[in-house]
Amino acid sequence: MDYQTPRFFRVVQYARRADRDVIDMVSGSPDWDPPAGIRDGLREYADFPADDFQYLPSDGLPELREHVAARRGVDRDRVIVTNGAGEANHLAMFGGLERFGGNEILLTDPVFPYYAGRAHFLDADVGFVPVEDRGHLDPERVRERASEETAVIVVNTPNNPTGAVYDADVMERLVEIAEVNDALLVSDEVYDHFDYTGRFSSAVEIDSPNVVATNSFSKAMAITGLRVGYAIFPPEDGPTGDLLERARTRHMLTNVTGSRPAQYAVLRALKTTGPEYYADIRDRLRERIDTFCETLEAAGAEYDRPEGGFYVMARFEDYDGSFDHAYELIDEAGVAGMPGQAFGDSRSEWFRFALMTPRVDEAADRLAAFFSR
Amino acid sequence: MDYQTPRFFRVVQYARRADRDVIDMVSGSPDWDPPAGIRDGLREYADFPADDFQYLPSDGLPELREHVAARRGVDRDRVIVTNGAGEANHLAMFGGLERFGGNEILLTDPVFPYYAGRAHFLDADVGFVPVEDRGHLDPERVRERASEETAVIVVNTPNNPTGAVYDADVMERLVEIAEVNDALLVSDEVYDHFDYTGRFSSAVEIDSPNVVATNSFSKAMAITGLRVGYAIFPPEDGPTGDLLERARTRHMLTNVTGSRPAQYAVLRALKTTGPEYYADIRDRLRERIDTFCETLEAAGAEYDRPEGGFYVMARFEDYDGSFDHAYELIDEAGVAGMPGQAFGDSRSEWFRFALMTPRVDEAADRLAAFFSR
Repeated sequence: MDYQTPRFFRVVQYARRADRDVIDMVSGSPDWDPPAGIRDGLREYADFPADDFQYLPSDGLPELREHVAARRGVDRDRVIVTNGAGEANHLAMFGGLERFGGNEILLTDPVFPYYAGRAHFLDADVGFVPVEDRGHLDPERVRERASEETAVIVVNTPNNPTGAVYDADVMERLVEIAEVNDALLVSDEVYDHFDYTGRFSSAVEIDSPNVVATNSFSKAMAITGLRVGYAIFPPEDGPTGDLLERARTRHMLTNVTGSRPAQYAVLRALKTTGPEYYADIRDRLRERIDTFCETLEAAGAEYDRPEGGFYVMARFEDYDGSFDHAYELIDEAGVAGMPGQAFGDSRSEWFRFALMTPRVDEAADRLAAFFSR
Repeated sequence: MDYQTPRFFRVVQYARRADRDVIDMVSGSPDWDPPAGIRDGLREYADFPADDFQYLPSDGLPELREHVAARRGVDRDRVIVTNGAGEANHLAMFGGLERFGGNEILLTDPVFPYYAGRAHFLDADVGFVPVEDRGHLDPERVRERASEETAVIVVNTPNNPTGAVYDADVMERLVEIAEVNDALLVSDEVYDHFDYTGRFSSAVEIDSPNVVATNSFSKAMAITGLRVGYAIFPPEDGPTGDLLERARTRHMLTNVTGSRPAQYAVLRALKTTGPEYYADIRDRLRERIDTFCETLEAAGAEYDRPEGGFYVMARFEDYDGSFDHAYELIDEAGVAGMPGQAFGDSRSEWFRFALMTPRVDEAADRLAAFFSR
């Protein structure tokens, strides 16, 4: 599979050029407001003394790292604040490939195309483990596929695109498989605030030298444009402690450090945002999921109700998840969704619809009308 | 030479722990205020609708790229906005090494240690061309040293640490040497607003498929913490057009995109900051240079009066530029400077003093007193 993000753009651009009203269900950018602390933080920062406009420590604002460490119960030294989860995954995957034996990166199928793009870019051999029904990953399938050639295993929970949430038992078995095969498990957890099951379990809850968890505030705080994420590496005094040191060096030689007003705003928001902010967003998303799924159900479509995140995968009879069909849905139904083919082979019959629009009910009605013609 | 940025930190940390007042002449962070447009931009951004808190285009805010392109007289498509000049240099050096024949990166000696660190990190063979008196680079020395093994030549004008400004003739000859050797000239021009000679000449003024210019707003606008820089690549429809495409992909897979409030603030400042802002800073720095150099002169030290930038290199009789001597200057003179050994072999007898403090006169007096003991 090629690096396919430009194909995302193609669908978005096709939708923009369409000669009709199109509801965007491609974009993964939240359509709600960030917490007030983000705006307050930027306002405060604007009045800071000149000194505060200068370099941060390379691995991020110390107090921000402290918050991250406290949330996950790890030592602050293990946290590197990155330019979004994008850089966190870059550091983790690059580091794992360099540090562990073998040249293979194992991904799931379907997969968020950025992981595949990055793996190809790193000249890794890329392997795919198909997920089961309802998007769940069976660790035994990973175990069968993994070998001494495997350097990195990348998972994402809650999952984009399937909406599956991996529980503690799955995570433990994935970590064990990484350990047995002398590989690194990279667990991208950017949707962790959007778990509707209560079963989400972070990979760093398992004490292992073979785990890196990546995350960001982009989705949780509706600030994809601020670029504040992080990676939690194994402890420096452990058997894989050099992973952290290499990641710090790579981060410094690539980016020097992150953007200070953004990190300050996130820290301010962490201090002032209560759990109700996240709960409200989850409630809103649950409503959107209900609306969308009920209409799909009534229209006779097959779909997976997401356990987490904010994407719904659905399929329609005799209508595979091709780019041509995605373009047709834009033109004929007025709904832009991502073709399943963009995520791999196993979901090539499906589409992924992002719920980042208040017009979810309208979009569902349009799809129902289109498929009942 | 190893990657030596941690050694910078060691000097800074030694100075912080010192049991006396120490004037910091190590740090390259401006000590003056950013233009008002930066603060205004952050304030305005804080009130923007939710949509504006989401992803920027990967290569940056279009209007910001437009400003950069107009300043240098190039097409906007050639500009990628980066996470500071750090990422711009990373993209340029990595791209050049990948695209051109050979595995050698040529640097000057003395050199800003980040370039050397990055070159080693990329597993390149690193060659050094010693500069001449007063820090000038003789292109003929580069010509003698360059070969088909050379993939990238990195220069920096105005120069850190020497303060030399390369004129149009030097730049033309460097570009020609890159062309003849099928290599890429990477010209880091972050100090371009701090040219006291009027002779600064950007590498992209020369129409060549073998040139990338890198820059940032960090020093020019006193915002090293905002992380907004850029690289200007050869045109996509030219013989080396794939450099731009690869850099875009690498940028996207590493960082996705940059931080939006920071880019917005820079754009706002570009629109509202007149030439007098930069002229005032240059005047202030000229005064500091005068003060510092006069005292060094009176103290019988040798020094290079900088033609650009804000560092002064000086040497003192029978007192080489070692780390031990740097520590001694901290303890005994109360002045923290960078030992010349951190920048290579050719200036190992020297120290570099950054003028980013209002206490330049006091520092000069302290040094004079110490060396007249």
